[in-house]
Amino acid sequence: MIGIALMGAGRMARVHAKAIAAAGAKLVTIYDVVPAAAEALAGETGASIARSVQEALDRPDVAAVLVATSSDTHVELTGQAVQAGKAVMCEKPLAPNLSEAQRCVDGLGEQAEMVFLAFNRRFDPGHAAVKQAIEAGEIGALEQLTITSRDPFPPPFDYIPKSGGLFRDMMIHDFDMARWMLGEEPVSVFSRGSCLVDPQIGALGDVDTACVILVTRSGKQAVILNSRRSAYGFDQRIEAFGSAGMVISDNPRATGLKHFTSASFGAPDRFRSFFMERYGESYRLEIEAFVDGLAHGTPAPVNALDGLRAVYLAEAAGASLRLGKAVELKTNCEVTWHA
Amino acid sequence: MIGIALMGAGRMARVHAKAIAAAGAKLVTIYDVVPAAAEALAGETGASIARSVQEALDRPDVAAVLVATSSDTHVELTGQAVQAGKAVMCEKPLAPNLSEAQRCVDGLGEQAEMVFLAFNRRFDPGHAAVKQAIEAGEIGALEQLTITSRDPFPPPFDYIPKSGGLFRDMMIHDFDMARWMLGEEPVSVFSRGSCLVDPQIGALGDVDTACVILVTRSGKQAVILNSRRSAYGFDQRIEAFGSAGMVISDNPRATGLKHFTSASFGAPDRFRSFFMERYGESYRLEIEAFVDGLAHGTPAPVNALDGLRAVYLAEAAGASLRLGKAVELKTNCEVTWHA
Amino acid sequence: MIGIALMGAGRMARVHAKAIAAAGAKLVTIYDVVPAAAEALAGETGASIARSVQEALDRPDVAAVLVATSSDTHVELTGQAVQAGKAVMCEKPLAPNLSEAQRCVDGLGEQAEMVFLAFNRRFDPGHAAVKQAIEAGEIGALEQLTITSRDPFPPPFDYIPKSGGLFRDMMIHDFDMARWMLGEEPVSVFSRGSCLVDPQIGALGDVDTACVILVTRSGKQAVILNSRRSAYGFDQRIEAFGSAGMVISDNPRATGLKHFTSASFGAPDRFRSFFMERYGESYRLEIEAFVDGLAHGTPAPVNALDGLRAVYLAEAAGASLRLGKAVELKTNCEVTWHA
Amino acid sequence: MIGIALMGAGRMARVHAKAIAAAGAKLVTIYDVVPAAAEALAGETGASIARSVQEALDRPDVAAVLVATSSDTHVELTGQAVQAGKAVMCEKPLAPNLSEAQRCVDGLGEQAEMVFLAFNRRFDPGHAAVKQAIEAGEIGALEQLTITSRDPFPPPFDYIPKSGGLFRDMMIHDFDMARWMLGEEPVSVFSRGSCLVDPQIGALGDVDTACVILVTRSGKQAVILNSRRSAYGFDQRIEAFGSAGMVISDNPRATGLKHFTSASFGAPDRFRSFFMERYGESYRLEIEAFVDGLAHGTPAPVNALDGLRAVYLAEAAGASLRLGKAVELKTNCEVTWHA
Repeated sequence: MIGIALMGAGRMARVHAKAIAAAGAKLVTIYDVVPAAAEALAGETGASIARSVQEALDRPDVAAVLVATSSDTHVELTGQAVQAGKAVMCEKPLAPNLSEAQRCVDGLGEQAEMVFLAFNRRFDPGHAAVKQAIEAGEIGALEQLTITSRDPFPPPFDYIPKSGGLFRDMMIHDFDMARWMLGEEPVSVFSRGSCLVDPQIGALGDVDTACVILVTRSGKQAVILNSRRSAYGFDQRIEAFGSAGMVISDNPRATGLKHFTSASFGAPDRFRSFFMERYGESYRLEIEAFVDGLAHGTPAPVNALDGLRAVYLAEAAGASLRLGKAVELKTNCEVTWHA
Repeated sequence: MIGIALMGAGRMARVHAKAIAAAGAKLVTIYDVVPAAAEALAGETGASIARSVQEALDRPDVAAVLVATSSDTHVELTGQAVQAGKAVMCEKPLAPNLSEAQRCVDGLGEQAEMVFLAFNRRFDPGHAAVKQAIEAGEIGALEQLTITSRDPFPPPFDYIPKSGGLFRDMMIHDFDMARWMLGEEPVSVFSRGSCLVDPQIGALGDVDTACVILVTRSGKQAVILNSRRSAYGFDQRIEAFGSAGMVISDNPRATGLKHFTSASFGAPDRFRSFFMERYGESYRLEIEAFVDGLAHGTPAPVNALDGLRAVYLAEAAGASLRLGKAVELKTNCEVTWHA
Repeated sequence: MIGIALMGAGRMARVHAKAIAAAGAKLVTIYDVVPAAAEALAGETGASIARSVQEALDRPDVAAVLVATSSDTHVELTGQAVQAGKAVMCEKPLAPNLSEAQRCVDGLGEQAEMVFLAFNRRFDPGHAAVKQAIEAGEIGALEQLTITSRDPFPPPFDYIPKSGGLFRDMMIHDFDMARWMLGEEPVSVFSRGSCLVDPQIGALGDVDTACVILVTRSGKQAVILNSRRSAYGFDQRIEAFGSAGMVISDNPRATGLKHFTSASFGAPDRFRSFFMERYGESYRLEIEAFVDGLAHGTPAPVNALDGLRAVYLAEAAGASLRLGKAVELKTNCEVTWHA
Repeated sequence: MIGIALMGAGRMARVHAKAIAAAGAKLVTIYDVVPAAAEALAGETGASIARSVQEALDRPDVAAVLVATSSDTHVELTGQAVQAGKAVMCEKPLAPNLSEAQRCVDGLGEQAEMVFLAFNRRFDPGHAAVKQAIEAGEIGALEQLTITSRDPFPPPFDYIPKSGGLFRDMMIHDFDMARWMLGEEPVSVFSRGSCLVDPQIGALGDVDTACVILVTRSGKQAVILNSRRSAYGFDQRIEAFGSAGMVISDNPRATGLKHFTSASFGAPDRFRSFFMERYGESYRLEIEAFVDGLAHGTPAPVNALDGLRAVYLAEAAGASLRLGKAVELKTNCEVTWHA
């Protein structure tokens, strides 16, 4: 059984702790800057408490480290764990901005491809089935991709300033999905953003409603639609259209129930609620893929370079929004726009 | 263009008048025992008024007669029209009861197969597609058939006593559907009925909620569910299960609209309303099949014998309800039960 | 944490062992007549091996016993465990036939309501939502209930003779569902059965395709459809129709994927496969309900009396099939038919 | 009965001739530059043949003129008919390019609002229901609109050069839909186009796969996706997302049939085929709206100004594609880009 040290004991760390148990791996120890948080989660999971990062890394029964601390510490902790010879899974984003992400990848060198970047949506059974259908040739050559991501409600207001903005915080998942589905790097990005949900978000210089077009060298088009609020719940869909057909990963339902009344004619059951229910299975499958990769010594299926490219797309989309024009993208993540 | 005389100017006659126009046939003349009714419909359609049945039958530009008068006159009018050498389409039921239906078929002799019995549901595109799928072998050998028919609301109360009861009035369509889909005559019928919608219906000796099991010699099973009232509207479904799969003719919708709100997660649009909207296309296609058969001299796809057998099943189901046991069915429509 | 002893180490015992872990209870010890089977499962789960039933019952850290042995031992093991003061969950059926089930309940006396009978489908989120909708008044008064249960393929041939027949082995779940949904005991049962899937099943005197109508005193009707084989997979649906509407528990899907090709216009993903995937969540929720009941000292939500009544309905349905008529049902499970 | 003169006897003219009959209006006379074409359609419909435009306009029994000739004659014929005091319905596009469309509207003066521009999709029951839902407040304030239009196959190759390009020929419908749904003029357009379906289309300087983002002053976003080819058939969807929910006008189906086999788990029936089946009802309802407007003297619900604005959006989208940046839109249809 692979032993895992968990860095962080907050909301995402708890999601991962549960996934580690469900995946049949062993949560050995937990570190958090707030000792009480580590203690609480350790109590619930039976893991030990590490009083420092180093103490966790020094344990011989820790083969892997899962970094689920606040975003600004990802680069440093990932580097430390790699240096200590541990396998690493790092929660998204790799870094809070492009320059740090680039610095991180440069620092990791050849290890960058071994660091598992936790873009969990790649492990969602529905989204993964779209990817498989594309690879199996079911839809022929991919031509148009539409990704819709709408959160049920905006994050707590005080989170907005430190979020890095909608593109880096929320759409980052969709940028990774788009790259993965397209199978080809985009060469341009164009974005539009509005503040329609909450004027306070606009007052902080951010947008809450956005759409983006990515185009690849071969002419494939990807459209991403984001909103920070959705009255009908967490809306997560992918539509892949190609020369021979289309596949859609639609929102799964809580159950197969259908309602028929004088006002409802086969209304399906509610969507699965926010990310912990909707993507619960993906977190478990992600840990399984991580552990399985360790056991077989295979490279991470999604790695630090993917983390870097997603941040690159996010910053380019931000630049496009400011400039009102398409922004050119380079394969080496070079900045082609004025900051 | 085939010229048609319409017998009757009531609700069903109006449905057929509209279908005749839509099918591109010519409504020549209209007869009704109430002259004012014939006048009104003639005025709307441009047809002439016939002052008697004979006057309509005497017209050389009338090639076909559509009998859509009250049920108790179907046998006589059909006979007269056949005698006059006209092609005939007769609205269901062929006759108000089994003995009259038998007398009608006996009287028609070889012509019985030429009289088109207007079981319009055979021409509904969805139901017809089930039949086609069965015949094309898509579901292998048919094994279980489920037919659900629920009206949006009970008929006017004064109609109940003259309706002949739920089995002969409402389930008659489903008996015809079952026979058509099974492709084999049932050898037994068992029925259950309750009065759950309106106690007044029960006071008249009728039921408003019923279910029936038919079994064929080879062991195929057909279940029919009826209710006189459905809060969510006209519910008309057929499910055909076989050795290689299943097809369902589900309720079609008014449009492809789907609603998503805080209480509704992709609720489809309402069903098409009562039979005139739901089965509107079937009435047009039925007239087209009738006219097409005349033009090509082919036998009626559904004829007076089918009308007889449906009444036979209805009366046997009524007997089973009274007796609390399965009733045996004969291919010659012999009564095997105590009346 | 509640400590559980598991009787049996076969297919169903493995399902329960997994559910115990997922529900956060503790699997203490495992007994099986085949020691190697117990050893294998103990090895996988970390539980100890009990060399006898008594050894398992003697353990003070065992608060509850889960009986998942072969059907003919359920009565005896349940009795022993109750006598030893343990809480008991017994896999269905309570007993292989009505007389033994009656003997079991008589023997249990007041404890019969405390023995949790593992009709897991009551804990399926979709089916349970139908029950909740009924109780919440969403569909008004229940009038017609349709339960469809089709297995993907027949059981191994050598299982058929010892299965007790389709009604006692397979439809038993549906009888329990019907009773639960109806909220009222049926007063009559009528059944029809055919051998359409495999003539060998017929040669053994059993049927593989069946339908049943139950009627309650107030006139509610329940139809059950069963087949031992379904080309499109495990088909498990419940439709509850009432005075104010209808709810359907439809087959849930593996994912929200939809396919569009030149031959497929929005085809949804496959059903969840056989019972372990389809009802996996129900097994976990069932254990949670069991453990929760123990913690709070509440009676079993589904108990030995429910187990008895389901067997009663199964045998009455068998009698109806033989006799070709409806069979009357008594609230005291009295046999009203000639055996 | 309103008497209509039909200008043109080609494919679209035939669609309208059928719609005129279905709507209960009277097709009086037909003119076409190819007399044989007019003769053929006159023969089928019972209308007379007009040997010149003037002859048709001179008839006192012609109250209205339906212009369904080739695009380059729309402006002239519309002007002539208006001058002759006739009501006019003009097939889309109003004119082959922006300058002609502007000239047309200038020439029409106050009459521009009386000329009915045949954007038939506004009369599609599904799309119209989206508009009604928006106006009824069902989704709160509209925020994101997604319009997907994919043809089953590209037009005949020799049509491409005279089509005016994808934006003016195909997406013109979607621009009108977007304006109608948004209820507010867009202030910017950004477009992307590729040639992925047929390189010959690219060789002619056109694209066959395109996506566009429109933004309004208040920040509403509309995304349009077009493809000239769709393996699964004519794909016509509208998704309107707002502060209180979402409505989708999904592709309606030929029937309510669903297929279940070893490879198909509830696959719905095919889409309605190309525009004549898919939008057949809209053509009829459009004529009804036209005739109804005449009878009541109300302005056209969609008029020559709407025709002008749709062409303006199409040309602006073309400019954005060439320039790689968003193009600003003016309410007076001023050209803000370098041609």
